[in-house]
Amino acid sequence: MSDDLGDKLAAGTCPIPISDYPTILMAHGGGGRLTQMLVDKLFVPAFDNPALKELHDGAVLEVGGSRIAFSTDSFVIHPLFFPGGDIGSLSVHGTVNDLAMCGARPMALSVGLIVEEGLPIDDLWRIVRSMEAAAKASGVSIVTGDTKVVDRGKGDGLFINVSGIGLVPPGVVISPRRARPGDRVLVSGPIAVHGVAILSVREGLRFETTLKTDSAPLNGMVEALLAAAGDAVHVLRDPTRGGVATTLNEIARQGNVGIRLEETAIPVDEEVRGACEILGLDPLYVANEGKCLVLVDPASADAALAVLRAHPLGVRAAMIGEVTGDHPGKVFLKSRIGGQRMLDLLTGEQLPRIC
Amino acid sequence: MSDDLGDKLAAGTCPIPISDYPTILMAHGGGGRLTQMLVDKLFVPAFDNPALKELHDGAVLEVGGSRIAFSTDSFVIHPLFFPGGDIGSLSVHGTVNDLAMCGARPMALSVGLIVEEGLPIDDLWRIVRSMEAAAKASGVSIVTGDTKVVDRGKGDGLFINVSGIGLVPPGVVISPRRARPGDRVLVSGPIAVHGVAILSVREGLRFETTLKTDSAPLNGMVEALLAAAGDAVHVLRDPTRGGVATTLNEIARQGNVGIRLEETAIPVDEEVRGACEILGLDPLYVANEGKCLVLVDPASADAALAVLRAHPLGVRAAMIGEVTGDHPGKVFLKSRIGGQRMLDLLTGEQLPRIC
Repeated sequence: MSDDLGDKLAAGTCPIPISDYPTILMAHGGGGRLTQMLVDKLFVPAFDNPALKELHDGAVLEVGGSRIAFSTDSFVIHPLFFPGGDIGSLSVHGTVNDLAMCGARPMALSVGLIVEEGLPIDDLWRIVRSMEAAAKASGVSIVTGDTKVVDRGKGDGLFINVSGIGLVPPGVVISPRRARPGDRVLVSGPIAVHGVAILSVREGLRFETTLKTDSAPLNGMVEALLAAAGDAVHVLRDPTRGGVATTLNEIARQGNVGIRLEETAIPVDEEVRGACEILGLDPLYVANEGKCLVLVDPASADAALAVLRAHPLGVRAAMIGEVTGDHPGKVFLKSRIGGQRMLDLLTGEQLPRIC
Repeated sequence: MSDDLGDKLAAGTCPIPISDYPTILMAHGGGGRLTQMLVDKLFVPAFDNPALKELHDGAVLEVGGSRIAFSTDSFVIHPLFFPGGDIGSLSVHGTVNDLAMCGARPMALSVGLIVEEGLPIDDLWRIVRSMEAAAKASGVSIVTGDTKVVDRGKGDGLFINVSGIGLVPPGVVISPRRARPGDRVLVSGPIAVHGVAILSVREGLRFETTLKTDSAPLNGMVEALLAAAGDAVHVLRDPTRGGVATTLNEIARQGNVGIRLEETAIPVDEEVRGACEILGLDPLYVANEGKCLVLVDPASADAALAVLRAHPLGVRAAMIGEVTGDHPGKVFLKSRIGGQRMLDLLTGEQLPRIC
């Protein structure tokens, strides 16, 4: 914590200069630079504790001799129903995946619904059924819940919070702080599918595509990976909001390492690439909901890749880059034509309410 | 599950007749009859599992030899700031109390924020500080979180989900199914304070009062109670949405017992009673955020009451009724003048967005 920030906290004044950002902008929720500012300047200093400072997708806590992973995620995706899924299945997969990215076996989920007055009961029913189907497919139970209703015009149909707990098996330690120069970077399949599938059905944007969200539970694949590669798996993270570029930036910063990607190695489907060109989007910044990034010791990288590819959700997994000792905190992309450019955090909001 | 409901579930059709309630009403979030219908007909059948069927304030799960309580609550209170608290402190106390009502010692909380574009950053900062102060006072850490932003007009300033986990000490078993005829019903202090304090600052309703919310963390008092009365404590529940009458109805239904209250024994402050008369509210149905109901074996009731009264939050605790073997599932009130009336669940929405 900088001295200036410490002074402001002590004085009880808001540590984000009011003159710069007097109110919350959409970009504060985008996963990019403004989200990071909120986390760094507001949440971490206020909720000062070691588990939170890890800044992982979830916290890992010691409970009576076991290590419990605990994670939360709220979903505000628009529209509620989209090709290949809905807010219900997405919210279950999202939290299951956050737990899996801690190396945990997901056990139980809670569901908090904030419903806008006027939502058709039948829509709620379809979403609830979809949550249950997703939970079953992920091998977890929904064990507790809460429902609130807000007046018409004070919500947007339905927001869902799913929190979850899981058990981290003995010996498994997954943390961005374990990233080491030489580690290989794997991705479990073609990127940017979820974001493009959602945009294809947004009002005013509808375009012809057969794309469906990639939303899926990754815990089975991660369990197989950890069983095979064990301690050689250093970091796991699912590149949701902000995509692969944002997620790798977070890992680089938290692990104090550099990361270099090979553009030609990164799997992107032609249909996704075409849609991104039309929409002016870089696939590296578009959200995924059924992919994970793996940082793995180089000696085990080929074996880890083979395990991913042997799983139905990882058939098109690829090795896309490596961790470097130089440029700590930065991510670079070696382009198709041989040049190298830095992949920075986005400052604005690219795709609002994508999850 | 009734056969008819089973058939509907098998057919995948919504088990709530569309013709009766085609859309979500404010009352579906009020804690009364329509909330119960959602839970009974939609959530429990869909998310069918033993932990959820307990229908407690949280679920209790076996994890590696320990019993973990896991609870979730979303807060949509309006306005965000109110006498004696704000949505931040309320949300921390709410989930801490849900865990305490499972007999657990709260350990860690998650925070999921859904912020409306345009919220002043300084308001967010005040609320975050208030959450941290409440967490500290409750002896818990906020270990993980998530922030989403929705467009202006699609939210209402700020909604907060707080989920939490806690450890249930060996030997402690708190469940509405443990309610037994003869058990005494205790309340930890004067009722209906929170609801009236919030209404006093609602637009269009402002009235002169010195009332502040009773929002407070109850885990310390519950811990003292369990240390002293142990296994004699059968049921704990905090009477939030829907108040004492609704909460006791839930216990009566889940425990398959009757409950009889003595109106003259129920502590209600004069200022609260006066405000309720003006507003046409029954204090028994008004929300509390710093009170608990205790069902305790008659042999330990006096001792339990003494422990509550010895705690700063329970100074005005009282014995207000008892569990009966007749009229299972029903709550009766013996009135000041000697008559007896049934306290039913509310059908409509009395106080929207009170938590």
